[in-house]
Amino acid sequence: MNNTKKKISSVPMRGMRDLLPVEVSQRQSVMLKIKEVYTKYGFLEIETPAVERIELLSAGEGGDNEKQIFGITKRGMSIDDVRNISSFRDIIDGGLRFDLTVPLARYYANNQAKLPTPFKVFQIGSVFRAERPQKGRYRQFTQCDIDVIGDESDFAELELILATSEALSQIGFSGFTVRINDRRILNGVVEYCGYNKNEFEMVFITIDKLDKIGLDGVEKELMEKSVNRPSSIKLMSFLRNVSSDLNDDLFTLLPDEVNKNVIDELKQIIKSVKVQSNDSYQIVFDPTLVRGMGYYTGPVFEIKDKDFPSSIAGGGRYDNMTGKYFGKKIPACGFSIGFERIMMLLEERGLSIATNEEKRVVIFDANSVSANFALTFAKEVRSGDGVVSTQKRRKNVKKQLDDFAKLGYSSFCLLDSESREAEFRPIK
Amino acid sequence: MNNTKKKISSVPMRGMRDLLPVEVSQRQSVMLKIKEVYTKYGFLEIETPAVERIELLSAGEGGDNEKQIFGITKRGMSIDDVRNISSFRDIIDGGLRFDLTVPLARYYANNQAKLPTPFKVFQIGSVFRAERPQKGRYRQFTQCDIDVIGDESDFAELELILATSEALSQIGFSGFTVRINDRRILNGVVEYCGYNKNEFEMVFITIDKLDKIGLDGVEKELMEKSVNRPSSIKLMSFLRNVSSDLNDDLFTLLPDEVNKNVIDELKQIIKSVKVQSNDSYQIVFDPTLVRGMGYYTGPVFEIKDKDFPSSIAGGGRYDNMTGKYFGKKIPACGFSIGFERIMMLLEERGLSIATNEEKRVVIFDANSVSANFALTFAKEVRSGDGVVSTQKRRKNVKKQLDDFAKLGYSSFCLLDSESREAEFRPIK
Repeated sequence: MNNTKKKISSVPMRGMRDLLPVEVSQRQSVMLKIKEVYTKYGFLEIETPAVERIELLSAGEGGDNEKQIFGITKRGMSIDDVRNISSFRDIIDGGLRFDLTVPLARYYANNQAKLPTPFKVFQIGSVFRAERPQKGRYRQFTQCDIDVIGDESDFAELELILATSEALSQIGFSGFTVRINDRRILNGVVEYCGYNKNEFEMVFITIDKLDKIGLDGVEKELMEKSVNRPSSIKLMSFLRNVSSDLNDDLFTLLPDEVNKNVIDELKQIIKSVKVQSNDSYQIVFDPTLVRGMGYYTGPVFEIKDKDFPSSIAGGGRYDNMTGKYFGKKIPACGFSIGFERIMMLLEERGLSIATNEEKRVVIFDANSVSANFALTFAKEVRSGDGVVSTQKRRKNVKKQLDDFAKLGYSSFCLLDSESREAEFRPIK
Repeated sequence: MNNTKKKISSVPMRGMRDLLPVEVSQRQSVMLKIKEVYTKYGFLEIETPAVERIELLSAGEGGDNEKQIFGITKRGMSIDDVRNISSFRDIIDGGLRFDLTVPLARYYANNQAKLPTPFKVFQIGSVFRAERPQKGRYRQFTQCDIDVIGDESDFAELELILATSEALSQIGFSGFTVRINDRRILNGVVEYCGYNKNEFEMVFITIDKLDKIGLDGVEKELMEKSVNRPSSIKLMSFLRNVSSDLNDDLFTLLPDEVNKNVIDELKQIIKSVKVQSNDSYQIVFDPTLVRGMGYYTGPVFEIKDKDFPSSIAGGGRYDNMTGKYFGKKIPACGFSIGFERIMMLLEERGLSIATNEEKRVVIFDANSVSANFALTFAKEVRSGDGVVSTQKRRKNVKKQLDDFAKLGYSSFCLLDSESREAEFRPIK
């Protein structure tokens, strides 16, 4: 033992966090509700490793997330090996996953023979991004994804929207709005404006900022970034037309460059969701909706809470990912709940999802009561419902009871004699 | 999009694994049972980050595990930064946690003001070790720890043993044996043999291998590694005496170098557990029990299943860890269930822990039945208990039903007309 060692900071690493018992309890209650809903819809839960090959993580589907990968060093390197590298790949062979979609594509390619078709799947797990930490943003956070793999029809989109909306309803959200668009509609619009193919992605990224920077911000950025001024003027005119009030008449404003079948498919999804939602939430066509990720190929959608500017869930169809990575083209569609965001909103709104199980504590005076007496008594009480904690009496019983009150305990029993009848009394 | 890109392997990174839906479902059922028991005993669940500072992980408490750390590279390095390093610390600032005990000590030091005293806590989470992968051993695996922090009395050991034993009972283990010893007893024995202090750790590591290499193996290793032959002869004589048959009379064979209070405390724990266990499991004194980790300071214990050679749970008291790291001396004691091992045993024994919820599937012919009709029907059925999956009819309905049978679905309903009454029939 080396006692001259200097002390180590007890604070978590930058951007990481410790979860207190009350936080874990609330998060787990919410997760359990979501799992219940997804399971009842016939979705199956899977888990993929936290670490993936660096080739997979940096294959190009992660967008900006790829810049934020936590790299994992190869094992067994000497310091000379490190000094002689010709590229980062010589020292890094893995990384922490930055989302659950890229690992899912790999998982499906790897396990397809053992999985049903279509594969209705959900995952809840930690992902890692070395972003600049901000208030409420962490470098390890939970994602909660639901996907349908192997169904090219819009029945996949429909079930994802219904299941996700029901999950959000079950955990206390109401009156939210599903916004939906289609990447093929965006393509048609941008084509109609006359942009070159090589500007499409930049234009999408700019439109995606509409919520944050507004129409004027988008205009400014387009003028700066595009060499094609007439196209940008045309696009701005379209955007101003459609972004005043979202309603289904907006379909009539779409240019001829947009495939009619795509519009019909989208109208069909909207109609079905309206029937199924029973007006407990809304669905609306939003021709300005992009959803950041480059891998989307068809419908894209997100859910906005009525009082919160950013989306609380987002997703879309990504038919090309498994084909591009693993040589097996398989249609896929997914929807992801912003778990950290909904936890923040639930906390702000004071919505309690915790169970109302009774919590009781047995406090025994170790000078006059044996541990066995106290434990046997506690066991008898515990055989019913609820939590029964057993604890030695501390000097300051008042403080001890206060601690339990803070943890949600409602009653206590003080054992100071093995002969006397024990009774629970309310704390406070 | 770069179509010349070469395909990426879909196999998980070396030593990592994908969990299939049936595996996730079984693991989660077991975890839920364990959580239920620990919660009912008044233990609180916490979560710590997967990534910790490299200083903490390599501070010396991890034993061999420290050699197996997955290092995390600093963000924003240039290739020149890497080539000019003088030590690994210049490129690595974090690592994946290799156990849950070291992070718990940090967590407690960091959050003590917000936590009750004593702090009865449990954690279930992934840990990472870059071991040589073997059948059934993975580099990411789940640990399931329960700890009491801030209680120096043996009431902590007692509750840990009772709660862990009850958790194991609830998930289907029975007739197992808790073995218990105390590091201070081991110290007394080794002192009595006359070893030098600097050989203690080596002697403990060797005794720890008794189960694997037997008495002769231990003797051979002691003779090779110790310079003190007479001590080794004395120790072997003690070990041969005590390892024939474990029973409580073994206490009488302990040398005078062992503190009598330690023996009394251990006897008291054994007596209490015997009373509480109601003979549903056994507890026995095992003076040869070491438990590998160097940080143990008092009682150590493990649980052996009746038909399995290795332990299925292990733990002990580690009073010096928080003091050593963070300058606050706080008594602590923990017990860890070997989660992967118990899952393996449960699977081998065909014990089913899955829920018996009914699973039904609604299959609709999309040519004659609308998605809305099928979804509304499914929703009505779903409002009761159980799982209701909805799926479009595939060409090969027989194969489709087989897939559902494999997933545990018991009945199906085939919708091929919106006018006809729908009925569930058993699959097969």
